[in-house]
Amino acid sequence: MTENTAYAVHQTARPSGFPSASDFTLARMPVPEPAPGTALVQNLLLSVDPYHRGMMDGGEEGFALGAPLEGRAVGRVVASRDPGLEEGDLVFHRQGWRTHALVALGEDGTRRIRRHEGVPLEAHLGILGGTGLTAYAALTRTAGLRAGEDLYVSAAAGGVGTAVGHIARLLGARRIIGSAGTPAKVRHLTGVLGFDAAFDYHDGPVGELLAQAAPDGIDVYVDNVGKDHLEGAIGALREFGRIAWVGAVSTYNGDRSPAAPRNLFEVVHKSLRLEGVLVRHHTGLQEELEDFLVPHLRSGRVGTDTTAVEGIDRTVEAFLGVLRGDNTGKMLVRLPG
Amino acid sequence: MTENTAYAVHQTARPSGFPSASDFTLARMPVPEPAPGTALVQNLLLSVDPYHRGMMDGGEEGFALGAPLEGRAVGRVVASRDPGLEEGDLVFHRQGWRTHALVALGEDGTRRIRRHEGVPLEAHLGILGGTGLTAYAALTRTAGLRAGEDLYVSAAAGGVGTAVGHIARLLGARRIIGSAGTPAKVRHLTGVLGFDAAFDYHDGPVGELLAQAAPDGIDVYVDNVGKDHLEGAIGALREFGRIAWVGAVSTYNGDRSPAAPRNLFEVVHKSLRLEGVLVRHHTGLQEELEDFLVPHLRSGRVGTDTTAVEGIDRTVEAFLGVLRGDNTGKMLVRLPG
Repeated sequence: MTENTAYAVHQTARPSGFPSASDFTLARMPVPEPAPGTALVQNLLLSVDPYHRGMMDGGEEGFALGAPLEGRAVGRVVASRDPGLEEGDLVFHRQGWRTHALVALGEDGTRRIRRHEGVPLEAHLGILGGTGLTAYAALTRTAGLRAGEDLYVSAAAGGVGTAVGHIARLLGARRIIGSAGTPAKVRHLTGVLGFDAAFDYHDGPVGELLAQAAPDGIDVYVDNVGKDHLEGAIGALREFGRIAWVGAVSTYNGDRSPAAPRNLFEVVHKSLRLEGVLVRHHTGLQEELEDFLVPHLRSGRVGTDTTAVEGIDRTVEAFLGVLRGDNTGKMLVRLPG
Repeated sequence: MTENTAYAVHQTARPSGFPSASDFTLARMPVPEPAPGTALVQNLLLSVDPYHRGMMDGGEEGFALGAPLEGRAVGRVVASRDPGLEEGDLVFHRQGWRTHALVALGEDGTRRIRRHEGVPLEAHLGILGGTGLTAYAALTRTAGLRAGEDLYVSAAAGGVGTAVGHIARLLGARRIIGSAGTPAKVRHLTGVLGFDAAFDYHDGPVGELLAQAAPDGIDVYVDNVGKDHLEGAIGALREFGRIAWVGAVSTYNGDRSPAAPRNLFEVVHKSLRLEGVLVRHHTGLQEELEDFLVPHLRSGRVGTDTTAVEGIDRTVEAFLGVLRGDNTGKMLVRLPG
């Protein structure tokens, strides 16, 4: 990879079911020149996320074939003709899956990153980025978690789940319960991340495992999965319980069976609330999130839980790993910078 | 029916599926004497409701066999040893399905009724009673209906549905759409109750009928039915739409198939909110409801939409009629007083 060459991952085929590396190719091209009003960014960190699987199916908001892909990224401005950006600035933007990008401040979510001393840059694509903002909005706005309440989060070892665990603890949650798909992740949840209880959802019906982990029930459920996790949580929720529904990773790979739980009517009996959360509606909380978290990131009370691979040529591998659930915490691709 | 005889409907058998008159009997007994701290009430109006079907299955909160049943009622105090109640007071209480009851102020929901000049007593079991309070709580608290928004309500010709139509109009709703199960009810909705559009859910898939009635979508759905109505509404809801889920009459008669819609995941994509409403959590809104509605009841802008049968011996017939959907508005039994 030479100085004047840029690389970008392109999608070349539409997968049916689980995608494979052959659905992508690594394209090479000259490093682009910034036009007036834009800046050239050299990407340092790329985010690969479960929702990208949905975009692989195409459609209005999906990936086009043979074209640059969308993804969250952090990079450094290396040349600027945007009056709002200076060489050396660190920016968050949405032109990931590539080594270089042309951005314009304020367009398409491009924003300057406040660098906080003592906080690793990775945090800006994790707990200070979209996954953290999702968790923060889900807990403080959608679910309205109060101190002393008990919480369950599915896909707890993933990006949003890890952030939910940290933020719920800081908000004063009583018991924090998580589920994950491997024994190693379950150990990570209780051993490293400080969850009060965790279970492997392969060990039995989620409803029963959750009832064992939370015999007195729960007040809040942050749903990253849908299906039997949602059904189990509805069963475990106490009166006036709240569900912040963030995603349904179980339905992203072409499994079109209903995500709807058989006990949905308990929403009425128990006066429950089920509400969807999309992070794009909560970008106004970014500064509040940083003010809330940065002291705890500095003190080490909250870690930056990431899994990173090195190099643009490993981007697809990292993405497939996310879909398989190989990561604990946020999955990132780190590029030389 | 003599002066010193009281009558009460008792359940004698557990139905499987749709109940029949033979599941009940009319028991007779002497009119009871009030003990110290209680008052004897002669019932004037009895409410029969879809939720009673669920209580017929027994269990902790269900009907016991061969015993007095629970139901909302309005009556007049005819003898009092409760210092808070005087002879002649009108009271709301929960000892319906019978001609006489012993009540104590403040116990089990017993409260004195504010009689409003020019407002019929029936209103206190309808739009000023549980069904109206349910509708008011669903719209103002759960769904947070705002002026200019579009609304759909299922079982719109029933007690809660009728109240939803009236109250939504007073709150400034733009288009109010209802569904019902007979052409006569559909005509009643648009012709008498002022709905902007209505359809008979037998005429096709609810989702398609709703899309025709509300081609631009809806903001709020008040769900009395569940199932395909819930699914259709989720499809029609705009971003940030709210569902106030009041009941699922379609599941009360032993149909245990899932009330859950196949498109539930749109709750995430469209940032929807689905929340259960139980009127018992909103009794604190009673005075607010009356202040809001009484001027409109007096002016005739809001009618008291009830279907009434006369006589305790027709209580079961009225109840079965509710389950069949024979009523428009609140179904009541009127007793001589």
